[in-house]
Amino acid sequence: MMHPLDDLPTPSLLLDIDRLEANGERMRQRACQAGVRLRPHLKTLKSVDAARRVVDAGGAITVSTLTEAAHFAGHGFRDIVCAVCLPADKAARAAQVHRSIDGPGLATLVDSLPVAQAMADRLRTLDAVLPLWIEVDCGEHRTGVDPDGDELLALGRFLAGCPQTELRGVLTHGGQSYRCRDAEAVRAVAAQERDAVVHAAQRLRAAGIDCPGVSAGSTPTAVHGTDWTGVTELRPGVYMAGDLFQIQMRSLAREDLAVSVLASVISVKPGRAVIDAGGLALSKDRSLMGLPDDPGFGALSDLDGRPLGLQVAGVHQEHGEVPLPPGAPALQPGQRVRVWPVHVCMTAAAHGHYHVLRDGRPVGTWPRVNGWD
Amino acid sequence: MMHPLDDLPTPSLLLDIDRLEANGERMRQRACQAGVRLRPHLKTLKSVDAARRVVDAGGAITVSTLTEAAHFAGHGFRDIVCAVCLPADKAARAAQVHRSIDGPGLATLVDSLPVAQAMADRLRTLDAVLPLWIEVDCGEHRTGVDPDGDELLALGRFLAGCPQTELRGVLTHGGQSYRCRDAEAVRAVAAQERDAVVHAAQRLRAAGIDCPGVSAGSTPTAVHGTDWTGVTELRPGVYMAGDLFQIQMRSLAREDLAVSVLASVISVKPGRAVIDAGGLALSKDRSLMGLPDDPGFGALSDLDGRPLGLQVAGVHQEHGEVPLPPGAPALQPGQRVRVWPVHVCMTAAAHGHYHVLRDGRPVGTWPRVNGWD
Repeated sequence: MMHPLDDLPTPSLLLDIDRLEANGERMRQRACQAGVRLRPHLKTLKSVDAARRVVDAGGAITVSTLTEAAHFAGHGFRDIVCAVCLPADKAARAAQVHRSIDGPGLATLVDSLPVAQAMADRLRTLDAVLPLWIEVDCGEHRTGVDPDGDELLALGRFLAGCPQTELRGVLTHGGQSYRCRDAEAVRAVAAQERDAVVHAAQRLRAAGIDCPGVSAGSTPTAVHGTDWTGVTELRPGVYMAGDLFQIQMRSLAREDLAVSVLASVISVKPGRAVIDAGGLALSKDRSLMGLPDDPGFGALSDLDGRPLGLQVAGVHQEHGEVPLPPGAPALQPGQRVRVWPVHVCMTAAAHGHYHVLRDGRPVGTWPRVNGWD
Repeated sequence: MMHPLDDLPTPSLLLDIDRLEANGERMRQRACQAGVRLRPHLKTLKSVDAARRVVDAGGAITVSTLTEAAHFAGHGFRDIVCAVCLPADKAARAAQVHRSIDGPGLATLVDSLPVAQAMADRLRTLDAVLPLWIEVDCGEHRTGVDPDGDELLALGRFLAGCPQTELRGVLTHGGQSYRCRDAEAVRAVAAQERDAVVHAAQRLRAAGIDCPGVSAGSTPTAVHGTDWTGVTELRPGVYMAGDLFQIQMRSLAREDLAVSVLASVISVKPGRAVIDAGGLALSKDRSLMGLPDDPGFGALSDLDGRPLGLQVAGVHQEHGEVPLPPGAPALQPGQRVRVWPVHVCMTAAAHGHYHVLRDGRPVGTWPRVNGWD
């Protein structure tokens, strides 16, 4: 008997719209209850069609590249934060996107006074303006200024006084939540995010610097955080799709996962099978390496999502190796399976579009905006 | 002073044409001396422009997807092997590409009699023909039939007698060479490749089955193998670009590497810098994890390729973390660097095109054919 997924190519990327909408609604309610605005991060799904289902009309979004920023701006999104510190030579491109938008426009991040000064110099020659958020380090130690340091105030004074820039607020990302192993630990990181960014905002305000925005949040902290007092907006992103890593973080449940890779079994030998989704189609993300129930490069289910108890233990470029231990379900060459990704941001990026499903049936394709230009 | 690479976007993928040509010429001479045809694998560079510089006119190529096969066929390549076992339901697409070519056409792999039979059934309804190679397992235990087993002969008889198929030969891939740690061990794998595939060809011929092609080779075995008696062609691919893994295998030298990622420093704090090439721009390949001189996710050089003694130790989606130990060269925000990839096949796949360099200067872009359709 034919299955609705039998006509799609393999490997290909599937997105379940029903689950996307449910995940979006659940996060929307969480933000509403917490009294903060939701500024969903589109770096995972990179899709205008997906964004329209999780973002309120005219609503605020977050992106991770200027390519995404220009794409979303071109599709009617009017309030965009590119949540990465840019080198000064990207200020012109960012300002161009900002200028193209009738609304709050595009803002980016800065975490250093010399970079802010270099950006202002370039913007001045173009007679352009770029809104900026000051990135604050809440303990991840990736980028961002010390919320207790002098650079925060120096940056705030410069941005507030510079005609080429517009200070939108302070922003942080508690990426250290990804090192947590239970909800209690994530809750502690959420408190670190809030404390650091609210403290930074208060220091700016105490110095007479206007700081309207106070932005925080990752999917784990947005799910597990309980008190966002003083924070104005949250920026989770992975929650729209979910992945095995987020299940381990208790951010979503197995039945919430909205993105999978459709694959075909291409070879079966005693004790092992090979599928046509390898390192390129799945990515080589091993974020769950060494943890209990490590799913390798992805967990297999049948076409209706029922787990097969099998995993992709090894990958080559176009081959995924699936060990078949004694008692494992038999796989046949040509059989189709779904692979549930470890880290959906990485897996989805290998694909140019989604085959979207409604009630388990393909109803079209949605393009992704990959890469950089 | 401006550098020729200062005007390119970051992150972006660089390809040095001079090195590509030198790598191509060196492998061509190796194959010539060994008396075997070269059928370069384009799965790494996925570029028609690159192929034209390393493949002889009208020459034979290898690809890893039907998307690549159709793309190269559409650009005048007439002798293509897609070196992956396909599920039977891809036979129609493969046959369509084969039919579009005036020449030897497109052949793919098969390693199972039931799949061959299912392919033949589908091809019969289309009145189509598909050339096939029998994949032989020379010890990697990924895909392929046992060169000593019954399935080899059963497959050979079926393919030779079936009007819908055309047996092109036997083919193997000594992927176990990637687990070797020195040239001597790789040489032993090259001998395994040769022995297995030549033995398989001899068994088919002894059974009265025509077996014109005997195909072997990966970059490490093609470089280090010394005796290819009985083999008709070699299929290395990574050698065109090279990467840190291939240096560790002694397949290429540091100064042969042709592909790097151009990146900008976006943040500098005491003891650490962050660049705008993260997990997406570099991939999360960690093939050198735990080995001496483990370069993390890539090694940094200046814009002219001089090593900086720094590496990308951690990646987030758009951030690469570069520890700055005491005595390390100072990095400045906005400064540009090149990152030399661990596994170039994975890194290049994140990018839609190359910025190609001649004598270190950008001279244009070459598109890549990524993904599956």
